[in-house]
Amino acid sequence: MDFAIPESLTPILARMREFVDAHVIPVEAAFHEADDFSAVEARMVEVRAKAKAAGLWLPQMSERHGGMGLSLLEHGLVSEVLGRSPLGHYAFNCQAPDAGNMEILAEYGTKAQRETFLEPLLAGETRSCFAMTEPGRAGSNPVWLETRARVEGDTITLDGHKWFTTAADGAAFAIVMAVTEPDAAPHERASMIIVPTDTPGFTLVRNIPIMGEAGSGWASHAEVRFDDCKVPVTNMLGMPGAGFFIAQARLGPGRIHHCMRWLGICDRAFSMMCERAATRELSPGKFLGEKQTIQNWIAESRAEIDSARLAVLYAAWRIDAVGQKAARVEVSAIKFHVAKILRNVLERAIQTHGALGITDDTVLSFFYRHERGAQIYDGPDEVHKSVVAREVLKTYGMDPRAVALARKAAAREGDK
Amino acid sequence: MDFAIPESLTPILARMREFVDAHVIPVEAAFHEADDFSAVEARMVEVRAKAKAAGLWLPQMSERHGGMGLSLLEHGLVSEVLGRSPLGHYAFNCQAPDAGNMEILAEYGTKAQRETFLEPLLAGETRSCFAMTEPGRAGSNPVWLETRARVEGDTITLDGHKWFTTAADGAAFAIVMAVTEPDAAPHERASMIIVPTDTPGFTLVRNIPIMGEAGSGWASHAEVRFDDCKVPVTNMLGMPGAGFFIAQARLGPGRIHHCMRWLGICDRAFSMMCERAATRELSPGKFLGEKQTIQNWIAESRAEIDSARLAVLYAAWRIDAVGQKAARVEVSAIKFHVAKILRNVLERAIQTHGALGITDDTVLSFFYRHERGAQIYDGPDEVHKSVVAREVLKTYGMDPRAVALARKAAAREGDK
Amino acid sequence: MDFAIPESLTPILARMREFVDAHVIPVEAAFHEADDFSAVEARMVEVRAKAKAAGLWLPQMSERHGGMGLSLLEHGLVSEVLGRSPLGHYAFNCQAPDAGNMEILAEYGTKAQRETFLEPLLAGETRSCFAMTEPGRAGSNPVWLETRARVEGDTITLDGHKWFTTAADGAAFAIVMAVTEPDAAPHERASMIIVPTDTPGFTLVRNIPIMGEAGSGWASHAEVRFDDCKVPVTNMLGMPGAGFFIAQARLGPGRIHHCMRWLGICDRAFSMMCERAATRELSPGKFLGEKQTIQNWIAESRAEIDSARLAVLYAAWRIDAVGQKAARVEVSAIKFHVAKILRNVLERAIQTHGALGITDDTVLSFFYRHERGAQIYDGPDEVHKSVVAREVLKTYGMDPRAVALARKAAAREGDK
Amino acid sequence: MDFAIPESLTPILARMREFVDAHVIPVEAAFHEADDFSAVEARMVEVRAKAKAAGLWLPQMSERHGGMGLSLLEHGLVSEVLGRSPLGHYAFNCQAPDAGNMEILAEYGTKAQRETFLEPLLAGETRSCFAMTEPGRAGSNPVWLETRARVEGDTITLDGHKWFTTAADGAAFAIVMAVTEPDAAPHERASMIIVPTDTPGFTLVRNIPIMGEAGSGWASHAEVRFDDCKVPVTNMLGMPGAGFFIAQARLGPGRIHHCMRWLGICDRAFSMMCERAATRELSPGKFLGEKQTIQNWIAESRAEIDSARLAVLYAAWRIDAVGQKAARVEVSAIKFHVAKILRNVLERAIQTHGALGITDDTVLSFFYRHERGAQIYDGPDEVHKSVVAREVLKTYGMDPRAVALARKAAAREGDK
Repeated sequence: MDFAIPESLTPILARMREFVDAHVIPVEAAFHEADDFSAVEARMVEVRAKAKAAGLWLPQMSERHGGMGLSLLEHGLVSEVLGRSPLGHYAFNCQAPDAGNMEILAEYGTKAQRETFLEPLLAGETRSCFAMTEPGRAGSNPVWLETRARVEGDTITLDGHKWFTTAADGAAFAIVMAVTEPDAAPHERASMIIVPTDTPGFTLVRNIPIMGEAGSGWASHAEVRFDDCKVPVTNMLGMPGAGFFIAQARLGPGRIHHCMRWLGICDRAFSMMCERAATRELSPGKFLGEKQTIQNWIAESRAEIDSARLAVLYAAWRIDAVGQKAARVEVSAIKFHVAKILRNVLERAIQTHGALGITDDTVLSFFYRHERGAQIYDGPDEVHKSVVAREVLKTYGMDPRAVALARKAAAREGDK
Repeated sequence: MDFAIPESLTPILARMREFVDAHVIPVEAAFHEADDFSAVEARMVEVRAKAKAAGLWLPQMSERHGGMGLSLLEHGLVSEVLGRSPLGHYAFNCQAPDAGNMEILAEYGTKAQRETFLEPLLAGETRSCFAMTEPGRAGSNPVWLETRARVEGDTITLDGHKWFTTAADGAAFAIVMAVTEPDAAPHERASMIIVPTDTPGFTLVRNIPIMGEAGSGWASHAEVRFDDCKVPVTNMLGMPGAGFFIAQARLGPGRIHHCMRWLGICDRAFSMMCERAATRELSPGKFLGEKQTIQNWIAESRAEIDSARLAVLYAAWRIDAVGQKAARVEVSAIKFHVAKILRNVLERAIQTHGALGITDDTVLSFFYRHERGAQIYDGPDEVHKSVVAREVLKTYGMDPRAVALARKAAAREGDK
Repeated sequence: MDFAIPESLTPILARMREFVDAHVIPVEAAFHEADDFSAVEARMVEVRAKAKAAGLWLPQMSERHGGMGLSLLEHGLVSEVLGRSPLGHYAFNCQAPDAGNMEILAEYGTKAQRETFLEPLLAGETRSCFAMTEPGRAGSNPVWLETRARVEGDTITLDGHKWFTTAADGAAFAIVMAVTEPDAAPHERASMIIVPTDTPGFTLVRNIPIMGEAGSGWASHAEVRFDDCKVPVTNMLGMPGAGFFIAQARLGPGRIHHCMRWLGICDRAFSMMCERAATRELSPGKFLGEKQTIQNWIAESRAEIDSARLAVLYAAWRIDAVGQKAARVEVSAIKFHVAKILRNVLERAIQTHGALGITDDTVLSFFYRHERGAQIYDGPDEVHKSVVAREVLKTYGMDPRAVALARKAAAREGDK
Repeated sequence: MDFAIPESLTPILARMREFVDAHVIPVEAAFHEADDFSAVEARMVEVRAKAKAAGLWLPQMSERHGGMGLSLLEHGLVSEVLGRSPLGHYAFNCQAPDAGNMEILAEYGTKAQRETFLEPLLAGETRSCFAMTEPGRAGSNPVWLETRARVEGDTITLDGHKWFTTAADGAAFAIVMAVTEPDAAPHERASMIIVPTDTPGFTLVRNIPIMGEAGSGWASHAEVRFDDCKVPVTNMLGMPGAGFFIAQARLGPGRIHHCMRWLGICDRAFSMMCERAATRELSPGKFLGEKQTIQNWIAESRAEIDSARLAVLYAAWRIDAVGQKAARVEVSAIKFHVAKILRNVLERAIQTHGALGITDDTVLSFFYRHERGAQIYDGPDEVHKSVVAREVLKTYGMDPRAVALARKAAAREGDK
């Protein structure tokens, strides 16, 4: 075992950290003050140009697609550095949901789809969104969708209602999960369909107000409707019915990115907590950091962050080594585990800042509000825990599906 | 021991609950949408008129002051009912910080002060604020203030910087804690001074953005400055140097009100969680409330809320019976205990709502953001825990002051 | 609402506390040293004689049965005082499982049963046990029992295997839950049968070693077998099939007693923690109680104990007022809530004692080990949480039974 | 970064795991039943002979001393495998406290000391103990010792009182921490002195009853006294006053061993929990492992164990790479972090077993009782948290020593 960070990556990480400190963090204040991404969009164009010039563009993509060609583990380490700022990933064009969309377009897109939709994304000229979650259906049960897409001749017609379509505001297109094969097995009912946002029948109902802010542009989460919304059949991404298969392919790496981004947030919050503890006086010459409760928080945060970080890197290493299917226990485990630690660290950092901690004068309030969702998006904690447990219990001989079938049969028997 | 709610109070509580449901909760949406109290101020004038007409005005004040003449325990029960809405207390003119200011004006104000400042407050014609916390000084150490007030002849001149002056925006006057006797013992340095907000030298710097919103009017927390700000000496409230004494007098009941208000929030969040659990389907015919994790949250919340509620009512009963000094352990204990339960219940309610829980489509997000401060304002948890422990340890023979003195002496001895 | 302890009870509680301190606690050391109740049984006979002479005998029984005639709430307060010592309840003849057995014999026993079995129990001349839990069946599902009792003519023949038959060692008789009506509805299958322990076919297999000790006599938990064990049909207690009905009747008050006893343990552990904190030096003149972590533990324990205590007394008051069926949410809620607080307080008290805390030189280790079961016996936490949640959710329109039936129907429909 | 276990180690770990399963775990029942190590000592002699024959002896020692020559990280992985049984480390002669004593004798012992004391230890012919903790002094402040050793001519005379001298019962010698230089700086006052246990003046007062058992032999913790106890001056280990320096040298690796051993316990408890969940029926065909609460426990345990394990291996890797002084934050962090996870996992495993979990029919009760000390021995959690926080805060410019000195000076100034 060797815990050393790859030598080739060390200078890249250092340069990225410097870049974030020098060019990205200074933009935050304007972003937070306006509660509005459009207020900083122009500045971010400049920042992105600098990132591209510095050769730090698209860290998550292969060199073939103009990216840096990093392994998942390596990009994980990058993601942590960028996560320190809410604008970090955007600066390098590896932000959700675009990063995921690039990934699936690169892998499953036709040549025409790649040219039309992927190329401008890679160049940072457009943005995209991913429409899956529905207000009327539990996100924890992704195979139960209401949105329908009928394929008739050369046309696909979509009808449905989605929300939490992140960054739909200003996006060039949406990748939409919709049921095309209602009679197939549950996991084979939905397809992915590319819908340009200027298609008639596509309506952005609103940017949903979340934790006090509706946001705008990339930093927003939309409610959208599809009403008799028609796109050509060439806009289907991958095979009909392959929607979940493709979505799965994107989820493992996506969770690594999220977790490492959260650890970047932890890193920032931890530093702020320590800075505050080391400098805030409770009375002349008596520092906050001398209080044992604050010391407990610092120590517990240090231990939690460091061990969680290793767990995420290990999961990334496993995916790199054996693929994400074999690593699904590790991936689900870090998803809920790191989300919890993120909350712990933010809570402690805020409390350490006292009244200042609840103001928007620091970035803590932004993280506190906008990462409450970490325990919900990409599968709520409760679902990931069940996934882990069921996988583990299978190795102890308990197969819930077999059990359920047996019990069903027994119940039927009892009914006679 | 008799846990029955006083018979005389039962119909009052029922009427208040109906009033809140019928007249106050319907105003919430407009309040939250605008993030701005001014958007609903006019409607709240009407609501207040109705409350007054219904004989439900000033539940916390004695009949002599036009109030309902309830005991602290009784008003605690009222406060819980009103706490279910962020606008509940305002509707009945028992909102912070005015309620506290009315209390000290009624008790310590001169006849002239009562006529000028208290009467319009009681009538609901004006609002007020209380300026104590300072940005440069730890709120946990209230005797260490920078704001100074010089008394010279008939004039008091204030200089200083305050923040978290709740509801300063639009207030008629502030009650300001300022050091008038810098050479006195720490607890005898500050006085309370009434400063009309139109006094030259009083500046409202800004409504502080908190958890995403700066708010306005009653629902805001200001940063204010006093620069060579002069008021007549007759604006001193109580004796010179009595600031802390008076502040203390206000704190015990104030904490009962806060705790019961938080339990009102818990009540609302708990109901919403149960409602959601009982109606949200995970798959056809499979309800969220059948999941054991949700059941655990409901049961733990029920147990926590019910036991905390009794503890707060007990503390109120103790204050009614033996005074707040004798009840200080109980009061400090409920302050941090209920704040924690409030957080637990809100966390669970949000998680039960999934994505909906982090939107502003329900009131949960408002409570989640604006009551994060419950663990900070009126003394952070950490301070209240130390208060409780030190009081308890005295009864076991450990007097921290004596210990500190002895150690200081030992240190000096060692230096020789 | 009136939180004052009934005046008539105050002197009784004071006398009981003094009695426990003077006569019971001094016996503990010998009990713990020997890990064997028989080592102190003779001394406890004397203690009991004193208790009887002092008029403090059978606090839980009505005066008609020679008891003190207290309400459930009053006996709760007594139970807390006695719980401070592991031998407290035994001293006054209100210990489990005898107290429960007395209760059901008094209520459901025939005249002959009362004379033969109840009278000697009340007099403290015999002991008894209650055989319900089975090693092969989940205690959380009490209607699923393997033990069978066939009624043929004048004879009942028992066959089965029980464990955690508390205090069977030395008991005069067991009250046994056994299935007599296997074809009845699940809750109407079992009956209660009185089995003298000298009946052929009754075997005490062993006192189960629990947390390091098998114990003996009253302080033990036996594994027992019934093999072709015959008793006269007159030994049936209550109606055939009424076993669960009677067991239920006993459980509500039993849980109040347990919870108040646990709060007595909390009281003792809390005192020890404070005593230690106030006197242990970390360095010359620097006391453990000055450390903020210890202060946090003291404060949190104080808040948790006080609020839990009120919740238990409230539940007792509810049972006294409206009966235990109407109070089942409150009763289940305190069961898991207080068990958790008991664990919290013991953990903190042990940690405050450092190395001493894990030795048997204090009573903490005994409580830590032997009350780990508090989260398991009389229904594990998980079951009580589900009970609370399901009852609460019914009031929100979710009836799990109706839901289950509907789903079953839907599943059958789907099978067609 | 490479998380793969070294290829050379993989077969060794597999053989050790098999050895533990085949030869060590079968001895446990007799050990637990007797509560007495002497009951299995003879069998363990045979087991040890087999381990030696298998080339699995002394995994922690260099090849020069007859050991396996593993790195600290490698031995960490071994320690986890052995930790699954309370007798695991003993079987391979790498048990505390002997492993630590071997380490310091090997490094600091004179040739004569090594021949007399180390050689028989390495061979497994003798056992040893380490006498540091004192009943009257806080273990968290190791520089404050009462035990004195006077060096006069060729003789050292010890006087003092120790407890928690693990495995003193039957040990050939003790390494004793005693103050030889009372006037030196606090960390330079104590020396280490080798005291054969048959020296007049050495008294084993008792094996301390801990969590219900006094134990015996290797599995015991003694209270010992030194009364005018004389040993030759050649029994001083290392330089006079070097006691703490040497003790420190031993602690870093020792904590890695403890943490990995605890993770071995976690591994065993986790397996038992899963086994139980997968096989225990709640009702016919309804398995415990289908309950969501159990699933939560399994998932949370999996996440906690896996991340903690990586953190410990990382700390070992850091010590191997940069030495334990540079790794002190990591070492203190894992000490309290893993101790907490150990407790979490044991709690969940016990609760999953229900009544069975509190019996001694499984090994869980042994671990639950005897590893409660994990949060206390080798530095209580609270001390390690302060160590971590203070080290971290130094990097933010807060040096507690400088702060303390400054405040002391200010206080003196104020006294004038």
